[in-house]
Amino acid sequence: MNTPQQQFASDNYAATCPEALQALLAANNSGHEPAYGDDRWTERSGNMLRELFEIDCDIYYVFNGTAANSLALAAMCQSYHSVICTPVAHIETDECGGPEFFSNGSKLLVAEGLSPQALRGKLTPEAIQTLVTKRSDIHYPRPKVVSITQATELGTVYSVDEVRALSWMAQKHSLKMHMDGARFANAVAHLACTPAEITWKAGVDVLCFGGTKNGLPVGEAVVFFDRALSQDFAWRVKQAGQLASKMRFISAPWVGLLEHDTWLRNARHANAMAQRLFAGLQQIQAVQVLHEPQANGVFARLPPPMVDALHARGWKFYQFIAGGGCRFMCAWDTTEASVDALLADMQSLSA
Amino acid sequence: MNTPQQQFASDNYAATCPEALQALLAANNSGHEPAYGDDRWTERSGNMLRELFEIDCDIYYVFNGTAANSLALAAMCQSYHSVICTPVAHIETDECGGPEFFSNGSKLLVAEGLSPQALRGKLTPEAIQTLVTKRSDIHYPRPKVVSITQATELGTVYSVDEVRALSWMAQKHSLKMHMDGARFANAVAHLACTPAEITWKAGVDVLCFGGTKNGLPVGEAVVFFDRALSQDFAWRVKQAGQLASKMRFISAPWVGLLEHDTWLRNARHANAMAQRLFAGLQQIQAVQVLHEPQANGVFARLPPPMVDALHARGWKFYQFIAGGGCRFMCAWDTTEASVDALLADMQSLSA
Amino acid sequence: MNTPQQQFASDNYAATCPEALQALLAANNSGHEPAYGDDRWTERSGNMLRELFEIDCDIYYVFNGTAANSLALAAMCQSYHSVICTPVAHIETDECGGPEFFSNGSKLLVAEGLSPQALRGKLTPEAIQTLVTKRSDIHYPRPKVVSITQATELGTVYSVDEVRALSWMAQKHSLKMHMDGARFANAVAHLACTPAEITWKAGVDVLCFGGTKNGLPVGEAVVFFDRALSQDFAWRVKQAGQLASKMRFISAPWVGLLEHDTWLRNARHANAMAQRLFAGLQQIQAVQVLHEPQANGVFARLPPPMVDALHARGWKFYQFIAGGGCRFMCAWDTTEASVDALLADMQSLSA
Amino acid sequence: MNTPQQQFASDNYAATCPEALQALLAANNSGHEPAYGDDRWTERSGNMLRELFEIDCDIYYVFNGTAANSLALAAMCQSYHSVICTPVAHIETDECGGPEFFSNGSKLLVAEGLSPQALRGKLTPEAIQTLVTKRSDIHYPRPKVVSITQATELGTVYSVDEVRALSWMAQKHSLKMHMDGARFANAVAHLACTPAEITWKAGVDVLCFGGTKNGLPVGEAVVFFDRALSQDFAWRVKQAGQLASKMRFISAPWVGLLEHDTWLRNARHANAMAQRLFAGLQQIQAVQVLHEPQANGVFARLPPPMVDALHARGWKFYQFIAGGGCRFMCAWDTTEASVDALLADMQSLSA
Repeated sequence: MNTPQQQFASDNYAATCPEALQALLAANNSGHEPAYGDDRWTERSGNMLRELFEIDCDIYYVFNGTAANSLALAAMCQSYHSVICTPVAHIETDECGGPEFFSNGSKLLVAEGLSPQALRGKLTPEAIQTLVTKRSDIHYPRPKVVSITQATELGTVYSVDEVRALSWMAQKHSLKMHMDGARFANAVAHLACTPAEITWKAGVDVLCFGGTKNGLPVGEAVVFFDRALSQDFAWRVKQAGQLASKMRFISAPWVGLLEHDTWLRNARHANAMAQRLFAGLQQIQAVQVLHEPQANGVFARLPPPMVDALHARGWKFYQFIAGGGCRFMCAWDTTEASVDALLADMQSLSA
Repeated sequence: MNTPQQQFASDNYAATCPEALQALLAANNSGHEPAYGDDRWTERSGNMLRELFEIDCDIYYVFNGTAANSLALAAMCQSYHSVICTPVAHIETDECGGPEFFSNGSKLLVAEGLSPQALRGKLTPEAIQTLVTKRSDIHYPRPKVVSITQATELGTVYSVDEVRALSWMAQKHSLKMHMDGARFANAVAHLACTPAEITWKAGVDVLCFGGTKNGLPVGEAVVFFDRALSQDFAWRVKQAGQLASKMRFISAPWVGLLEHDTWLRNARHANAMAQRLFAGLQQIQAVQVLHEPQANGVFARLPPPMVDALHARGWKFYQFIAGGGCRFMCAWDTTEASVDALLADMQSLSA
Repeated sequence: MNTPQQQFASDNYAATCPEALQALLAANNSGHEPAYGDDRWTERSGNMLRELFEIDCDIYYVFNGTAANSLALAAMCQSYHSVICTPVAHIETDECGGPEFFSNGSKLLVAEGLSPQALRGKLTPEAIQTLVTKRSDIHYPRPKVVSITQATELGTVYSVDEVRALSWMAQKHSLKMHMDGARFANAVAHLACTPAEITWKAGVDVLCFGGTKNGLPVGEAVVFFDRALSQDFAWRVKQAGQLASKMRFISAPWVGLLEHDTWLRNARHANAMAQRLFAGLQQIQAVQVLHEPQANGVFARLPPPMVDALHARGWKFYQFIAGGGCRFMCAWDTTEASVDALLADMQSLSA
Repeated sequence: MNTPQQQFASDNYAATCPEALQALLAANNSGHEPAYGDDRWTERSGNMLRELFEIDCDIYYVFNGTAANSLALAAMCQSYHSVICTPVAHIETDECGGPEFFSNGSKLLVAEGLSPQALRGKLTPEAIQTLVTKRSDIHYPRPKVVSITQATELGTVYSVDEVRALSWMAQKHSLKMHMDGARFANAVAHLACTPAEITWKAGVDVLCFGGTKNGLPVGEAVVFFDRALSQDFAWRVKQAGQLASKMRFISAPWVGLLEHDTWLRNARHANAMAQRLFAGLQQIQAVQVLHEPQANGVFARLPPPMVDALHARGWKFYQFIAGGGCRFMCAWDTTEASVDALLADMQSLSA
């Protein structure tokens, strides 16, 4: 029995992809370079993103996803406003109150009584309608933003029509649309649409485009399609401790990721590995896959003894609910051999 | 006339030093690695820092100096408290209200009427005494922390005795001692003391140890010598968007920096370049050096036409006051040739 | 058909009680008086409260309940901590994010899956246990406080044993106990215990003692039994805009309320009116009382046409859930005639 | 030697004026009344204020001056913005960081190097110009508001032309104009202009109209002339713990104050008492009056032994600077006898 070479705990266990690393090294070899974003890589990667999204959007780099989401939301909310999201939204469950902190108190309104569709982590227009119309008095924070995660925390992907329907409902109630795109690349890879089609063309005002899980060492991009929302955002980023002095080391890897569609290739590979894992899991009788993966994560229910045995063999993965619910994440660098090794161990434990 | 290869605007124009880069590459080659700091480099670099400081201190990595200082101060202050510092303190002049933001309102009390000694950017025990005893009513934020910058923003370095005297006064008034060490390495290089002697042995409770200006691509270390102050600090860092998911890319370069005293060698070189520049400037009659540099920055008054002419030739440096006051920063990678080229241009413009 | 003289919408529709008003007038007649709490009424009312609670507690007056609860919680929480409460807690449903604002982001953790007992607005030790043990990672705000409302938002009252059991569980997990006592007087009147028995003797660390609903024009008292928690609280109050300059007009009415047990008499009267209303409602077949009132509010389900008809006749009361759920609050000045008039109208509409 | 009946420490040592008290009593006698501002007095006083200011402005009542100023500024600033004021501005010196707290970090930029005119507490257009043009980089909070105090903290009053000149400069730099009117009535009484002329007609966007120092027991009005700035302000007030449940007890006294120009009569009387004190002080050789009072405060330098002796005789007044600088405030209820008694004591001590 060998220790696993790769893990399925999180796509941020992965390394930096070669293309991003090469760009970082190139930026390092250029000698002295102006700080705080006045460098060539920051300009170039911004232009590449504008080209990718086919629109003159405003781009800001920050260090991680908590900061990207929290600052984007704070730019759309005052402290007495609120943000509508699902109960499994990362901003609700895994950012330690970051959105509330950066906004100085904006409340997250968690959608309740979601339809079965929602069990796969998706928000519905009806849930927005219910939360917005529930109350309108001043004793409760006024809804101002809808936040959706694309791909969702449960490995599903909103279709273009679904995003449009959510945006329509948001607009009806004068709410802004925020997309937490920690795994945006995986969603685009699944949808086979253009980045524009699933964002601003579908009504998204601000996208947090995740780079880290897609192959960067560190760094996310906040993309403002509604440029009125980014007024003075540079000051906000600076004050919040999110302005890199040696910015080129954040922006140059983005150049590497964006050139030759590396970001999309990375995502497609991760998604394919999830499909391979999904296919294999269906052959293991003891394992019940919760739903077909659309992005790079597979959610399945395992017999608790199998969970323990896998852990004992050195495998790392998250248990997201009690009773054997498990998450297996694939990354840009996950190999077929790793997937097969995990499946083989499960198979042997299932026998 | 050639475009300058290196600039003197800031030490964060510099690249990543080879030792830090090698460690980063090694960390990248290790395949999958646990996230959020549960990796081998984070553990190892923490141990190296504890060894360096000869004490069992608590270490947290954050992305930049604004975050390091702001979070450290917030850990020592409630919103209705205040922080004593100099008028030239980076936390007062260059962090866009970061300390006020992260603490939710703590006021910075700027020392006034400093003695000539203070014109070189240093705080004095008397200035602390004056500010603390000025008022004690509830209509004014209660002083809780003294913050000093080592090396100072004006290129000077507090001696061990000076830090001790400040700490003594701080302790007398139940104030905590914070050291903004964005250029801590340069200060230690100048003092030729141990890191322990100029920090906790001299009464410092928390040090923000700057890595970026010393040769890292990104990242600073918050070092708590008073471990009671770091209670739940991991939650604070997470909420504030300062916890790197792929932490190894922040911590591994610290291993490269700390091994074989690279951090100290880098700092000594930068300091030596400042001395070379200082020596050269004294030969140029039109230039008036404000005071002998102790760290890696030289402050001098140039004739305004010379400032303009240097800028026209492509040189970048900051003007910190009106009327020709200029700052020239040397970095770990500043070459003798670059210093000499700058001096030659000044000389030719002075003739 | 006459317009109602009194309403059942809220106990803060009531006027100032005569005893509080007399004290206010006396304070006004005393001419000049030191500001910000250095007056005789503030000192005297503080001493009266300490005597009432039989302990040397710290007392601070603030303007309203949102401020009292929010500042008390902020004194026990950092921004990355959390507060455990019920889904119907006033701090969760009716303070517009006040607790999150004053604490700069502390999250409220709403207890889920409460037992039938909890349907009456009470928290249980099991619910605390579940929330605290659910997660302990740094990606989620760390629980620090349990907040209970006494009397609850649904008109029930925690017994001394219930509070003790909650405090025991809180203490087991190093959580502080906060009591939102907007209707504390009504709870004590129901329990017929001493104020000490239901607060600090039962493990409560901080009580927000409501004055407004009990007969004051404006003002609540924050009572710290754990005096370590009130360190520098005077500064917090001042910064948060809650320090009255002419403090005597806040504190003198407290003297009127506390003298000769007016506070208790007021509460007993309001509770008795709720009992009278409860008894009458049981005679009206179309009305279903949800549970026997223990404090000054009655919760009942009315046929929707009756709700509309009562509104049409000028009666004001809140509908707290869809489908005819109604709340009827009695105040210190609610008369038997008003209760009977409401009942008579219901009876006539029921026929 | 008798204990003084009245003091000169602060105009908030004064009682409630009879007119405000009568209105409060009338509101109390009206029985039940809707809460949170849906009462008749809140509506009526709002209409009276709109009539007084001759414009359809938005009115919000809050409990005190710290809250009024802080919330008004927060409505105009994001956390990374800044507010320009004088070094003696109440928001800078006496609100314990309230503005920084409510805005989540907005910095106050204190005007430096003010002209002799400024020694009397006034801001100048030149000082605004200097602060705004000093820096425009993202490392420093961007100026967004100019805040002036009318009457100033040093007892002087801006003329209509002075306010216009400040507003012109503010507008030139896209800054909003805030007027801290804790003693607005005293300023209007001195200027003998209309309230409209010295506020919105002179470019003021938001006025904090002080009621407490003018004769109320508690309460200030935030008056938005620029109604775009008050969007969702009702939520801000609620979240910040500044919404009175029994609002009528805050608003009814405003009716009493506004009816028959009581507010102006109160202010004129206080100003007249300051003039009487000023005239008397000029007859006492040992006392040096700093400048002729324009509002209700007199600033003078007394021999330190006289200060001590007055204190020993029971007189209360503030020493605002070292070396005998004293402030004597007159209130709406200060009697000629009290002024004369103070003067007599000074005279006897001067002899």
